[in-house]
Order: sequence, then structure tokens, then C-alpha cells
Amino acid sequence: MNHNGFITFEGGEGSGKTTLIQAVARHFELKGQRVVATREPGGIDIAEQIREIILNRSNTAMDGRTEALLYAAARRQHWVERIKPALERGELVLCDRFIDSSLAYQGYARGLGVDEVYEINQFATEGVLPSLTLWLDLDPEAGLARIANNEQREVNRLDLERLDFHERIRQGYRLLAERFPERICRIHADQPVEQLKDEAIALIEKKWNGPIVER
Amino acid sequence: MNHNGFITFEGGEGSGKTTLIQAVARHFELKGQRVVATREPGGIDIAEQIREIILNRSNTAMDGRTEALLYAAARRQHWVERIKPALERGELVLCDRFIDSSLAYQGYARGLGVDEVYEINQFATEGVLPSLTLWLDLDPEAGLARIANNEQREVNRLDLERLDFHERIRQGYRLLAERFPERICRIHADQPVEQLKDEAIALIEKKWNGPIVER
Repeated sequence: MNHNGFITFEGGEGSGKTTLIQAVARHFELKGQRVVATREPGGIDIAEQIREIILNRSNTAMDGRTEALLYAAARRQHWVERIKPALERGELVLCDRFIDSSLAYQGYARGLGVDEVYEINQFATEGVLPSLTLWLDLDPEAGLARIANNEQREVNRLDLERLDFHERIRQGYRLLAERFPERICRIHADQPVEQLKDEAIALIEKKWNGPIVER
Repeated sequence: MNHNGFITFEGGEGSGKTTLIQAVARHFELKGQRVVATREPGGIDIAEQIREIILNRSNTAMDGRTEALLYAAARRQHWVERIKPALERGELVLCDRFIDSSLAYQGYARGLGVDEVYEINQFATEGVLPSLTLWLDLDPEAGLARIANNEQREVNRLDLERLDFHERIRQGYRLLAERFPERICRIHADQPVEQLKDEAIALIEKKWNGPIVER
């Protein structure tokens, strides 16, 4: 399996990952490349069932470590059923959030420990990491303001956390980028989407040497 | 927290754990001790929801690692909501299966790797292990014959596995007992329940120096 086509997009709330992924996917599709744009739980039935437990508002007793294990379980199934087969077919996989979200949100911001959360996620993917992770870095205040102004986007539970929580997430991503400098590229998210797209494409093309699989 | 009162019972199918736990619990209760006899998911709502996903027969696509992570998640919640508080109150906890079941069944017999499954379970319990684990060792053929003769016990999915799977589980427990000789005590399960009970009680009393909490 060639992992070079496994690209993840990370960042805080409102950092623009979804829009960027759509633009990048369109670019490679127009070049005749097969692209899988996905995000957990990715329509995978078992992963959806797991996610229901995580998001069920009546599960107020849920412990942080239970939640981290459930995220890792859903990630595993999404990996096995969707991402790995696509990589094996030589396709380009663009994934909205992956292991680094668990590390930044639960490992760092929630205080479970980055190393511990890293280990259970390495179990989930059998040690595979993305070949490239684009971290869309944005001032949390700007990100939250974007969300507030975007009527199409539903406000979720995390958006409502206090600002210092979002600051901690950014700090978590900063530490991850220092720890994995070969893999994680910081992109300044406060620029027009066209420029973001060009920067992302350049980084992906530098990393990706997989086979071209035509549509 | 005093962990000395955390006792787990392990063994293959039909090894007699349930009967033994009942007898041991009665013994300590008659001495005026508060006892919690439990097994996963232990009536814990979130753990029950997780177990439903694991046991759902239509989830045929479930990967072995997803399953191991789900077991660890259910264990975590059972630990947080039930076992840990009981230990903190100084009670004796008798638990039917715990981490070693995952190690023997999934880590060893299913081939996921004992070390890997150990790590995700250490995450689940924050490194806490039982103070004493009683392994009821029995020839798998004898265990399966017991189940076949016991009309009250429903035959489950694992009972129907081929005999060599059950042999592998026994081999897994054997390796665990070698690895954790201070913690895991092998009990030969093919003896009358009164003798089993006496042996178990003697081992527990040697290990347990927790406070006596009267009922």
C-alpha cells in the first residue's frame, strides 16, 4: 500500500477545512485523478453507531477516556472500510480530521495526555500516519466569528466551549507541528480560499508520488 | 484508593467462574463485608450501549481492532462508574472477566497482539490492574461439555468456535500467568465447588488487606 496519497486536514472550529477540501478535490478530479474526500464516521455503519453513543446528549456520565477509545474505534472502522482500500487502489484520500484532532482536543486540550491518546490511535491504524497533514491555523476568535456568521453551518457542542478551550486546541496543534515537522505543515488560514488552495496543492504535489489512477 | 480488594476471575467457557463468584461473595457477605460482584458491562448504561454494537449480529464488517477498542471503552466506563467507586469505599470487588480476557481472547487467540491490547487497556484503567486474578483452568473439552449439559445457560457465539480456538485461549492464559506470576493464580477448575471456594478464599485473604467495611 502506498500511503503517500493519505492527506489529512486539521484545525480549530471555523478554520475552513471543509471548503478547502472541496476545492482541492475538484482540482485533482479535473486532472483526472480519483479522489476520496471523507471525514469520520464517513458513512460507515459501525462508525455511525459508535458516533451516536458519543454524541447522545443523555450520556452525560461519559468519561473522557471512554470517549477517546470510542473515537479510536470509529476511526479504526473508517480506516479499514474506507481509507485503506482507497489507498490500496492508488487513490488520493483527503480526510477532514484524523488522529491529530484526537491528540489536540482530547490528548492536549482535555488533558488526557498526548502520548496516551497517540498510542490507542496507533493501535487503531496499525501505526499508519497520514503522509501529510495540513494544519489550517487561525486565531480562535476569528474562527468562532466565522461560524457565527455562517448560517448554513450548524453550531455544535464544541463551538460553545469557552474561548480558552479553543486557545488550548491551537496550542495543542502548535506542539504537534513541532513534534512531527516532516508530516504537519502549518497553513495560515486567514487568506482567500484561492490562495489557500494553491498552497495546499503545492504541498500535496510535493509529497504525493502515488500512481495516477484515472477516473 | 486501595486496590487490594480488586479481584478478577478468568478462564475459558464453562470453567465455572459465575458459580465460584457467587459462593465467594456469599462467604464474605456472611462475615459482614460489603461485596460488589460484577461483570462487564455491569448494568452501566453507556457500557450497555457499547456492548450492543459489539454483539449486534448485523455488524459483520466489524474489524478485530474496532472490537478490542470497543471492549476497552466499555471497560473504562464500567471501571469509572462501578469498580473504582466501590474500591474507594473499601469494598471487595469480585469481577467476572476483565483485562486478561481481552489479552487471552483478542490479543492472543485472535492474534491482535498481547502487548498492543494490553496498552489500550492500560489506557482504559489508567494503569490499574487487579490485585489478584484467579484463573480457573480447565480442559476446553470439559468446559464445552459442561455448557452443553447446562440447560440454564444460553449458548453464545464464542461457545460455537472450534475447539482449537478454545485451546488457544487456554494457551493465552498460560502465557499470561507466566508473565504476571505475582498477580495471576491458576486454580485447577476440575474439583468440587466447595474446594474451589476454599482455595479462592484463602488466596483472596492472603492478598487483601483492605479495611473491613460492614454492611
